[in-house]
Amino acid sequence: MINDATKHKLRDIFGKVNLLDSTEDRIAYSYDGTPLFGSLPDAIVIPAAVEQISLLMKLANEEKFAVVPRGSGTGLSGGSIPTENSVVLLMNRWDKVIELDRNNLAAWVEPGVITGKFQSLVESHGLFYPPDPGSSQICTLGGNVAENAGGLRGLKYGVTKNYVLGFEVVLPNGDLMRIGGKNMKDVAGYNLKDVLIGSEGTLGIFTKILLRLIPLPQTSRTMLAFYDSMAGAAETVSSITSARIMPAMLEFLDNSTIKAVEDFARLGLDTNTGAVLLVEVDGPRSAVEEDAAAIEKICRKSGAKAVRVAGDEAEGMKLKAARKSAFAALARIRPTTILEDATVPRSELASMVDFIETTAKKHEIRIGTFGHAGDGNLHPTGLTDERDKNEIRRVEGAFDEIFRRAVDLGGTITGEHGVGLAKKKFLESLYDTPFIRFMKTTKEMLDPNCVLNPGKVISVSPRCEGALPRSREQIEKALGRMDNPSEAYF
Amino acid sequence: MINDATKHKLRDIFGKVNLLDSTEDRIAYSYDGTPLFGSLPDAIVIPAAVEQISLLMKLANEEKFAVVPRGSGTGLSGGSIPTENSVVLLMNRWDKVIELDRNNLAAWVEPGVITGKFQSLVESHGLFYPPDPGSSQICTLGGNVAENAGGLRGLKYGVTKNYVLGFEVVLPNGDLMRIGGKNMKDVAGYNLKDVLIGSEGTLGIFTKILLRLIPLPQTSRTMLAFYDSMAGAAETVSSITSARIMPAMLEFLDNSTIKAVEDFARLGLDTNTGAVLLVEVDGPRSAVEEDAAAIEKICRKSGAKAVRVAGDEAEGMKLKAARKSAFAALARIRPTTILEDATVPRSELASMVDFIETTAKKHEIRIGTFGHAGDGNLHPTGLTDERDKNEIRRVEGAFDEIFRRAVDLGGTITGEHGVGLAKKKFLESLYDTPFIRFMKTTKEMLDPNCVLNPGKVISVSPRCEGALPRSREQIEKALGRMDNPSEAYF
Repeated sequence: MINDATKHKLRDIFGKVNLLDSTEDRIAYSYDGTPLFGSLPDAIVIPAAVEQISLLMKLANEEKFAVVPRGSGTGLSGGSIPTENSVVLLMNRWDKVIELDRNNLAAWVEPGVITGKFQSLVESHGLFYPPDPGSSQICTLGGNVAENAGGLRGLKYGVTKNYVLGFEVVLPNGDLMRIGGKNMKDVAGYNLKDVLIGSEGTLGIFTKILLRLIPLPQTSRTMLAFYDSMAGAAETVSSITSARIMPAMLEFLDNSTIKAVEDFARLGLDTNTGAVLLVEVDGPRSAVEEDAAAIEKICRKSGAKAVRVAGDEAEGMKLKAARKSAFAALARIRPTTILEDATVPRSELASMVDFIETTAKKHEIRIGTFGHAGDGNLHPTGLTDERDKNEIRRVEGAFDEIFRRAVDLGGTITGEHGVGLAKKKFLESLYDTPFIRFMKTTKEMLDPNCVLNPGKVISVSPRCEGALPRSREQIEKALGRMDNPSEAYF
Repeated sequence: MINDATKHKLRDIFGKVNLLDSTEDRIAYSYDGTPLFGSLPDAIVIPAAVEQISLLMKLANEEKFAVVPRGSGTGLSGGSIPTENSVVLLMNRWDKVIELDRNNLAAWVEPGVITGKFQSLVESHGLFYPPDPGSSQICTLGGNVAENAGGLRGLKYGVTKNYVLGFEVVLPNGDLMRIGGKNMKDVAGYNLKDVLIGSEGTLGIFTKILLRLIPLPQTSRTMLAFYDSMAGAAETVSSITSARIMPAMLEFLDNSTIKAVEDFARLGLDTNTGAVLLVEVDGPRSAVEEDAAAIEKICRKSGAKAVRVAGDEAEGMKLKAARKSAFAALARIRPTTILEDATVPRSELASMVDFIETTAKKHEIRIGTFGHAGDGNLHPTGLTDERDKNEIRRVEGAFDEIFRRAVDLGGTITGEHGVGLAKKKFLESLYDTPFIRFMKTTKEMLDPNCVLNPGKVISVSPRCEGALPRSREQIEKALGRMDNPSEAYF
C-alpha cells in the first residue's frame, strides 16, 4: 500500500482533483476487459502534461511503487489490471488529434483518441486508418499501439504496427524519448520503435503517436456465405487466396456462434448452418465488382448452400452485424466470457476449429468460435461462470490444450490480444529460451526497478512476480462483503 | 591476426576447401559496395550446415576473433567490411528456395537466394515479393533482411521488414533460435523479430527466412514526366498523394543525373530538363488506366513540359531504364562514387534537393541526386576521387551538412542503406541519448564479447572500437605496393 507521504507527493504533481483514491474509484479501475483477473489500485492519477508523467515515473523509481497505464480498459489479456502497490495512470483524457498532414499522409494524435472516432475523422478527408480492433468504438489508439492491436482487416492491411511511424514516449525511468518521423523509410539504428509497440505498457508510456494513413478505398462490397460445415468455409478461404484475391475482411462464425447471434440479434440466420463466412472486398469500383463475382463463384463451388451479396453499403452493414455482434451475443449466454485468440497458419484453420470443438466436448464446457479466417486468427470463446471453480478448472484445461495445439500447428498463443497476465505461463513454457531471455533482459534494461506495469508479459524477478494481481476477493473484502463474495462484486 | 592453432580449429569445423586464406582471397573479400572503406580479413569460411555456424560463433567467443557475415557484398554503408582479427562468413552459397506455400502465401528461403531470382520465381506462380533494392539482380535476401532493404516500391508496398514472417537465426553465442511463423498476426511477447531485421549482421546470422508474399498485381503502367525544375516535380509528387493515388513507383532524377544517364545510355532524354519523374502504377487493369490518366493530368498541371506514357510493358522497361541506370551512369564520371540516402518527409523533397545543390556548390564538389520521390528517400551521389584527400574532405564536409539538414527537416540519416561504418558518427551525434543507450545495451546483451560484426552501427566498448576497419593502405601494404598505393589497388 502506498503511504500517505507518497500520496502527498502525488497530489503535489497532479493536483488534488486529479488524484482519485476513494474505494468506489479504486473499484472502478480494478479490472479491465479480461475475465478472472482484478485487483485494487491504491490510487488513480489523471495527468495534464507530459512532465507530470515523467515526475510520476521518477517518484515510482524512488519510492518503488508500480505504475499501470490505462486507456479505455478494453484489453483482453489483463494488460491494464492494477498490481499490488500500484497507481493507475489514466490516459484517456488525452484525446486530441494534434495534426492531420494530408501531404505526408500522416497524423499526430494523443494516445487517448478513440480509434473509431479517428477513423471517421480521417475518412471524412478521403483517408484511411485500417486497423480496426473489435472494440474500435471504445478503445484508444494508445492502447492499440501498446497491444499492437489487430482486427478485421489484418489479412489485407496488416495490424497497428504497420501504421505507426513514430511516437513520443516516457520511458520507465521518466526520460522522454522521441522516435521515428514522417519518413516512409528509416533504418537508422536498431528498431526500438517496434519493440515498444506491442510491449503492453511495460516498456514505455506513449504520450504522442505519429500514424501513417493511406488513401480511402473507392468502394467495398460485402457478402455472407452459409455452409453445412466448417470444412467448406475453410476450403473457400484457401481458394480465395489461391485465386490471388485479397479481401479486406474474411471472417467466420461457427454453429454455436451463429445460434447465439440469431438468438441475440434476430437477423434471420439459419441456425442449422455449420459455418458462416463474411467476406468484404474493397478497392477501385471495377476491381471490387470483379472480385466479388469471383468470390461468390468460389463460395458456391466450395459448397456454400447460400450466398447473400449486399446491394449497397447499408445492406453490407447489416450483413456485418452478424459478425460484429458475435462477442456480445456469446457474452449473454453465461456469466463469464473468456475470449481467446489462438492463431494458426491459414491452412490449418479447419483442423484447428475441429480440435477446439473436440476439446470443448472432452472437457464438458461450451466454446463458441469465430474470428478472422483470412489470417488464421481464431477467437474460441469459453462460456462459463467464474463462481463455479470446478468448471473454471475445466475451461483452463481446455484452453491449455488449445494453445499447445496452436503452437504445434505452427501458430501462436496470441494473434492480437497480447500476453498480459492471461498468457504468461504459455509464453514462458512454449517459447524458445533465447527469446524469453531477450525479453527479460530488455525489461530489466529499460526498467531496472520494475515499476512500469510489473508482472505483465513476463516475470523478471520474484519481486515483480509478487506484484501479480490477486483475485476479486480482495476487492470484495475492501467492500466488506465477504459473506457472499461473488454476488457482491457487481 | 588469428593464429595458426585457431585456423586449425576452423579447418576442423569447415573442412580444408572451405577455409580460404590466400592473399588473393583475402583481398577479394576486403571490401563491399561502400567506397572509402576496406580491410583484410584473416580468413574466409564457407559453411555447409547450420551446426558449423554455431560452432564458429562458439569458437569466436572462446578465442575472441570477429565474425563478419556476408552475402553478395553489395551493401553501401560498410556492413560486410571485415574488421581487424576477423573471419568472413560467406553465406551466398545458401541459395535454395526451401518451400513455396501458395495456400499461406509464404516462402521459406535460404539467405543466399538472389532477390531478383526469387522475385522471378514467385511471379511465375502469380505471386509477388515487392521489396526491390537497386541491386536486386545481385544482392541476397539474407542481406536484404539484415539491412531491412528498401527499394523502388517502398511508398505503396513498404520495405523488407513488412515481408518477413519469421526466421531461423544463429545468435552471437552460437544458439540457434527460431522466431515467427506463417501467422499474419502474432503478438506473443516483445518484438525481437523486428530488432534482428535491420540489425546489419551485428545481432544474428540468418540461416533460413520465412517471407510473406502477396498476389501479383494484374498489370502496370509506366510514364516519364519532364520538368524545367525540381519544384514542378515535387509539386507533382504532392498532388498525386493528395489525389489519394498510391503509385508503385514515384522516382526522380535531377539535371546532373539526367545528363549522366543520357551520356551513358543514349535514351534520347533532353539534357536541358531540370528534373524527371518516373511514375508506375499497378493493380487491376481498369484502376491502372484511371490512375495513369489522372497522373498524366496532374503532371501537366504541375508544369511538366512533356509526359511519355509507355504503351506496354516493354516500353515501360525502356522508360525505367533511365532511372535504373542512374547509379551506373553517375559512377562512370569520376573514380569514386559515394551513394548516400538521406531521407526526408515527402513534403520536404524540393527543399532538400535545393539544399543539396547549394551545399555541393559551396564545397566545390559534384553531387548528382536521384531517388525515391514518393517516400522522400534521396540518393545524393558524390562524384569524387578518393586519391584526392583534399576533395574527399570537402565531400565529407558537404555530406555532414546534408545529413544534419535531413534530421532538422524531420528526416533520417539513412532511409535504406543502413548505418554500418559510414553513418556511425551521425547516428551517435544526431540521435536521442535513450535510443543510443538502448542500442548499446541490446548489443551487449546479445553479444557480450562483441564478436559478431563488431564496430558496425554503434560502438559498444573501446575494444570493439579497436576493431574498426583500417584504410586501403593496409591492403596495399599486404601486396607490397606502398610506393604508389592508390594506383596499385585495382
